[in-house]
Amino acid sequence: MLLIALEMIGIAVFAASGAVAAVRARLDVFGVIVVALTTALGGGIIRDVLLGVHPPTSLRNWPYLLVPALTGLIVFFYHPQVARLRRSVLLLDAVGLGLFVTSGTTTALALGATPYAACLIGMTSGIGGGAVRDLLLREIPMVLRREIYAVAALAGAVVIVVGHWARLPEAPVALAASGLIVALRLVALWRKWNAPVARGLEG
Amino acid sequence: MLLIALEMIGIAVFAASGAVAAVRARLDVFGVIVVALTTALGGGIIRDVLLGVHPPTSLRNWPYLLVPALTGLIVFFYHPQVARLRRSVLLLDAVGLGLFVTSGTTTALALGATPYAACLIGMTSGIGGGAVRDLLLREIPMVLRREIYAVAALAGAVVIVVGHWARLPEAPVALAASGLIVALRLVALWRKWNAPVARGLEG
Amino acid sequence: MLLIALEMIGIAVFAASGAVAAVRARLDVFGVIVVALTTALGGGIIRDVLLGVHPPTSLRNWPYLLVPALTGLIVFFYHPQVARLRRSVLLLDAVGLGLFVTSGTTTALALGATPYAACLIGMTSGIGGGAVRDLLLREIPMVLRREIYAVAALAGAVVIVVGHWARLPEAPVALAASGLIVALRLVALWRKWNAPVARGLEG
Repeated sequence: MLLIALEMIGIAVFAASGAVAAVRARLDVFGVIVVALTTALGGGIIRDVLLGVHPPTSLRNWPYLLVPALTGLIVFFYHPQVARLRRSVLLLDAVGLGLFVTSGTTTALALGATPYAACLIGMTSGIGGGAVRDLLLREIPMVLRREIYAVAALAGAVVIVVGHWARLPEAPVALAASGLIVALRLVALWRKWNAPVARGLEG
Repeated sequence: MLLIALEMIGIAVFAASGAVAAVRARLDVFGVIVVALTTALGGGIIRDVLLGVHPPTSLRNWPYLLVPALTGLIVFFYHPQVARLRRSVLLLDAVGLGLFVTSGTTTALALGATPYAACLIGMTSGIGGGAVRDLLLREIPMVLRREIYAVAALAGAVVIVVGHWARLPEAPVALAASGLIVALRLVALWRKWNAPVARGLEG
Repeated sequence: MLLIALEMIGIAVFAASGAVAAVRARLDVFGVIVVALTTALGGGIIRDVLLGVHPPTSLRNWPYLLVPALTGLIVFFYHPQVARLRRSVLLLDAVGLGLFVTSGTTTALALGATPYAACLIGMTSGIGGGAVRDLLLREIPMVLRREIYAVAALAGAVVIVVGHWARLPEAPVALAASGLIVALRLVALWRKWNAPVARGLEG
């Protein structure tokens, strides 16, 4: 129940990040909806393909399609002012990453994956949707940019796996993991935490 | 039987669209064949992965490889004049989309997918091949461009599903669905039907 | 045993090719590690998804992650001089292609794929990792560039399949196939073997 709620909120938030990025790239209303759907469902479909769930959950249940399509439509008509588009994509992406890594790792554990595989599948499902969005819009994927991204996803996935191992109640663990990822991303963006570039290439 | 014929024609047509686009991007003969194969088989492989068919049909039967490879070779040696390359890609892509959405939706229904999932998998298998072609050649995927694309695919998939539900004979339904998609795409291209872009960004 | 050794060396070599390409694209240390992991594991994950192995082998065993992550880190700190980066990517990619086509074809045969499907899955797993690397870094995928690439992969896969059919011992066949692929790629790069471009477009 909690898992489905987290996943649906994550889908709406990722759909909004895709839709805002598509508005910024000046796509028309159909293009905006396609990017919203792809960003919102891409990570979950990758997760289901890796876990062997056929057909993927999001292609069997209509709310998985309705929520991101409506979100895309709403963003298209009431998107933020142009100057704030870039910041909105980054903020929405951070929240979506948190929710998706959490629900992806929990789903993988529930389907019997080992803790190690669950971490990796959870990270992949969180990072995947945003990477597909950036590839479609021909931007450099966020996971390759200068601020801590994969590390934040890993930290959240580890919290879930440790909580599962310690048999802690699911809800607070999920909130803690999502919150940790969002906090790490926002602080990294705010303080411009950059990792070093290889020597001899700075010039 | 009809299904296999439709799929093979769709594969040849999509292979030609990929090969023409690759010639236009000045790839050599091997690059042209690789793009022809990827465009022709990409959609079907995505469909089989989503439906859990292992290994994908096109990797088990040699005609699935021979048809697009030969098509790529023929296009390479007898491609249309340079000025007509772009128009040829659009036209071939429209026919390929129609045939692939039709055969993808029908295959998914035959393998027991629900009508809802069959629509989505059919659309994905039609749109997927062209999207892979455009990503490889670093063009904006057609599904994100200004003319009605996903909507045409959806309309065709719905015709198949309704025909299946009403137990109509397969052949005329398949022809009607393919024809509808091709007609919608060509009219959209001809009349330059564009959907609106978000407010405040037209300038 | 031999298979695992070949695959691990191939993973390290492909990881190094991805890491060098990422250093060349001026990514930071995390971006370099992400590209190293994606290049090294991408081909194997595609192979496992096509063969229906859930979850993919590389997401269940930690050495599959540790080896490319460490390789990425080592490359980041001790990468070749700037002027040699491009040549290093090409050389490492050739060796990785040889090892991956060999291990991918052999794995597919061991899991019961037909010789025909095994060839195609082996080629895909060898070409896939490098293609993902180039898409992420927004370069034209090597398989589409001017030098013989897919043909070298095909030649190696055929050697494996013929050796399997003739019941030859596995180790020398694997070495011969890998060596053939690397040799074909290096000679093609050295002699600048180019295939023809379509007529009327040379200007």
